[in-house]
Amino acid sequence: MNRQVYTALLHYPIIDKNNLLVSTSVTNLDIHDISRTSRTYGIAGYFIVTPIEAQHWLVGRIIKHWNTGWGSTYNSNRKDALSLARVVSDIATLVEQVQEETGQHPLLVGTSAKCYPNSTSYEQLRSQLKSDGPPVVLVFGTGWGLHPELLLECDYILEPIWGTGDFNHLSVRGAVAIILDRLLAKDRPALDAVNEMKKD
Amino acid sequence: MNRQVYTALLHYPIIDKNNLLVSTSVTNLDIHDISRTSRTYGIAGYFIVTPIEAQHWLVGRIIKHWNTGWGSTYNSNRKDALSLARVVSDIATLVEQVQEETGQHPLLVGTSAKCYPNSTSYEQLRSQLKSDGPPVVLVFGTGWGLHPELLLECDYILEPIWGTGDFNHLSVRGAVAIILDRLLAKDRPALDAVNEMKKD
Repeated sequence: MNRQVYTALLHYPIIDKNNLLVSTSVTNLDIHDISRTSRTYGIAGYFIVTPIEAQHWLVGRIIKHWNTGWGSTYNSNRKDALSLARVVSDIATLVEQVQEETGQHPLLVGTSAKCYPNSTSYEQLRSQLKSDGPPVVLVFGTGWGLHPELLLECDYILEPIWGTGDFNHLSVRGAVAIILDRLLAKDRPALDAVNEMKKD
Repeated sequence: MNRQVYTALLHYPIIDKNNLLVSTSVTNLDIHDISRTSRTYGIAGYFIVTPIEAQHWLVGRIIKHWNTGWGSTYNSNRKDALSLARVVSDIATLVEQVQEETGQHPLLVGTSAKCYPNSTSYEQLRSQLKSDGPPVVLVFGTGWGLHPELLLECDYILEPIWGTGDFNHLSVRGAVAIILDRLLAKDRPALDAVNEMKKD
């Protein structure tokens, strides 16, 4: 890929099942699973976004355990993945950090289980990511999804994931995995072709 | 899709980080995440496979909470997803149950982070699933993956998920999401085409 791509998991501003604005709690598995998926797809950094100070301490402790603590010797792959994770208070701080790292103002791409008239398709964004341009942050929501006020701040909104029916209540961990695979998986010869090549 | 497709998450026979045979513990989030992904992609049933009796009781309690207990009224989408989940002791029992439900002996498709000479590609399996034939069970491992003895019992082994580099340590929740999306996501007109059609 030609662009730096970042992932961000938001815990505020989020909507709950009654469409009310809430802040959600960080969960340990969201740190691990999304770090591992991010590392698999060459993501430049994974932001865990929460305004709650006590959760910064918690996330910091988990990351430290795997990066420099006992976990780092127990499982070096996990260290490799968790080294992408960092915690920030809000989207503005995230934008600042990406700007410092890359020297460019990033584009924000929101994700949602709903379709909007101006939603961007996977094909469109995939081909955009292959061309040169500013860094891109893929923004994911917890709870019942990103608050509309945040989606309005995004430069693009990615179309929902269509399964085979009308059920679209994936976990955010599943959604991140599918979206990174759709956007970033290598174009590669099909396995048939690879096997044919091996025979030559 | 034309075939009945099932998912199975194995907790035995599994290998640990030292390649030793182990039995792993069922985790709550594996039940939830993989049920939700399975439901999204039209899976006929999701088997949680463990020989440990005490874990059957635990899984049964969790499923009951969401299917008929308090959870069923709190979140009906979760009930919808969790209704796919069932727990069995081993692969033989799983095969029997699928045979009872469908009247046909299922094909077992193993998954692995390693590539084998006879691995099946996503393209091959995707097109096979579209044609008529016996039901298919996609078998996923916990821990460090399915024990080789189990892979040998499978009719096919699916090729690994290629990310963008050499890191392939996805969580099983992430791997299931990506694999079901690659195999079962609807062929559909790109969003551009849909938007064009809407304008007409």
